[in-house]
Amino acid sequence: MRIVVDAMGSDNCPVPDVAGAVLAARELGSTIILVGDERRVKAELRKHDTTDLKIEVVHANEAISMHDKPSTVGKGKPNSSMHVGMNLVKNGQADGFITAGNTGAALAIAMLNTLHRIPGVKRPALSFILRVGGKNVILLDVGANADCKAEWLAQFAIMGEIYARQGLGLEKPRIGILSNGEEEGKGNSLIHETTDMLKELPLNFVGNVEPREVFEDHADVVVSDGFVGNILIKSLEGATSLLLNLIRKEIKSSPITTLGGVLARPAFNRVRNEIDPSEIGGAPLLGVNGVVIIGHGRSNDIAIKNCVRQAERAAAAGLIDAIRERLAQTPTSETHYG
Amino acid sequence: MRIVVDAMGSDNCPVPDVAGAVLAARELGSTIILVGDERRVKAELRKHDTTDLKIEVVHANEAISMHDKPSTVGKGKPNSSMHVGMNLVKNGQADGFITAGNTGAALAIAMLNTLHRIPGVKRPALSFILRVGGKNVILLDVGANADCKAEWLAQFAIMGEIYARQGLGLEKPRIGILSNGEEEGKGNSLIHETTDMLKELPLNFVGNVEPREVFEDHADVVVSDGFVGNILIKSLEGATSLLLNLIRKEIKSSPITTLGGVLARPAFNRVRNEIDPSEIGGAPLLGVNGVVIIGHGRSNDIAIKNCVRQAERAAAAGLIDAIRERLAQTPTSETHYG
Repeated sequence: MRIVVDAMGSDNCPVPDVAGAVLAARELGSTIILVGDERRVKAELRKHDTTDLKIEVVHANEAISMHDKPSTVGKGKPNSSMHVGMNLVKNGQADGFITAGNTGAALAIAMLNTLHRIPGVKRPALSFILRVGGKNVILLDVGANADCKAEWLAQFAIMGEIYARQGLGLEKPRIGILSNGEEEGKGNSLIHETTDMLKELPLNFVGNVEPREVFEDHADVVVSDGFVGNILIKSLEGATSLLLNLIRKEIKSSPITTLGGVLARPAFNRVRNEIDPSEIGGAPLLGVNGVVIIGHGRSNDIAIKNCVRQAERAAAAGLIDAIRERLAQTPTSETHYG
Repeated sequence: MRIVVDAMGSDNCPVPDVAGAVLAARELGSTIILVGDERRVKAELRKHDTTDLKIEVVHANEAISMHDKPSTVGKGKPNSSMHVGMNLVKNGQADGFITAGNTGAALAIAMLNTLHRIPGVKRPALSFILRVGGKNVILLDVGANADCKAEWLAQFAIMGEIYARQGLGLEKPRIGILSNGEEEGKGNSLIHETTDMLKELPLNFVGNVEPREVFEDHADVVVSDGFVGNILIKSLEGATSLLLNLIRKEIKSSPITTLGGVLARPAFNRVRNEIDPSEIGGAPLLGVNGVVIIGHGRSNDIAIKNCVRQAERAAAAGLIDAIRERLAQTPTSETHYG
């Protein structure tokens, strides 16, 4: 298995990106192709013991920053590490691509400049994997498509189900739709229309899932439009960091509570691990013609390694072919709503 | 000032509802009209010392439960405490109405059966007041309208601004629009269209506010459609309770961390107070022809008292007249998008 790692992706690139690539080569035995500024990548590699590891470096003379606009990178930076890396996948020289870089740019470059859509896919979706109580929940779309049609959401459900089977090993993933209440009838007109479509598809559809229920093991895959999905994950991040900061501040406000905080620290560390996104790795971009995993900009080496593991699993399971075949069979892609 | 308290509203009614009414009469000096099953309300009142307090009881032989459907209560339970109570406001016998009952039912009864819309208001909005770092942020709509038009959102902004001035005493409230990124251009088509309208209105419009920024004092009023607003507040509640439960579980998992938790308890209590919704009271229903404050179903007596205080403030400031006058002046209601 050959996986491309974008060396110029993360906020602190190329440090964690290269360290994670080395970790993946060592622990998973993968062949890693690091793409980026060759001089910087090689300098970073020299800090690690890479004896016997299968690591290649491919030069790319441009890098995309978090400030680059997705709408301009496609033509504006045609030699970026994302372009070069995704083209390796497109040309069959690698089995998957991972980056901890600018999500919007990765989406645009995958969709418009390199991999393009799988035939039958109306819109690719960006997913997000939430880890709760040791289980994973796939949310999608979380940002690729701000305005969606019901038929796109139905396709997101199909692609999410395939990823849940193949990437996460679930046998009969439960598919839900994000809504503001669990009762049928709650939600807006897009939810109602999508619900009608999902009921007709051969899916284990469990209906509406409200935000609280996302954490309560009601569904394995939760679909939404990209605007609402993005609001959901940003609300979760915002609420979590607000609460942890408040607790930290209040604990430090007196000597007794500070002592209590010190004694309770192992518990807090376990909570932090429990909600730590680096344990998962990243999130698949579903619907493009190649395996693409996008990690968080703050990814550390472990997160990068886990992104590589995700890419390998998806590639080994034949994710792209499965999506292609499934969308050719289901009415959402052609006859019914085409 | 005469405020109607729905005695049959909260999950544990009439206990906290009556206790809160007594507290309001005692601490705020208000005249309280308790509406509900007279026998039960009077029995509950006898548990309190009501000497010299101005408390009246008005009988209503039906009560709305949390399970009643908003679409059926209007005609299905025409003698409910909500109907009777809101009619007292409509007929000028009271200055405001508060309930900790079924939100959807209160909205439907206010809009369709009793108070009706203020002339010029396209759609009433349900607001939510979030308390962060001792400041209040008004979010609206958080559930009255699942599918919205841009002109409705523009009106929500106007009504929210008036409430921020009159209910919260802010001089020049900052108005933001909930979006999935702070940069202009982020968001879906509804956000873009609403942004164009808000820029034209005489408001202190600060642009996009992303979920994290709702807690970071970027705006005093944040508008959204009712579906997204509801997803936001439910995500916050869900994430908060998930995290607090995780912390509780992990702290209890060993004797040392349990001891740490005991010592740190005052800090946790302060955090709990900081995010306790009962300190605020409830949320105004904006756009109907009367002051209506809706509290949480789990309201305690303090929350009920604070709802009464909110209703008094809004009534004293002339909230309804202010909305009526402002909407008559601004183009959203008539000429421009009517």
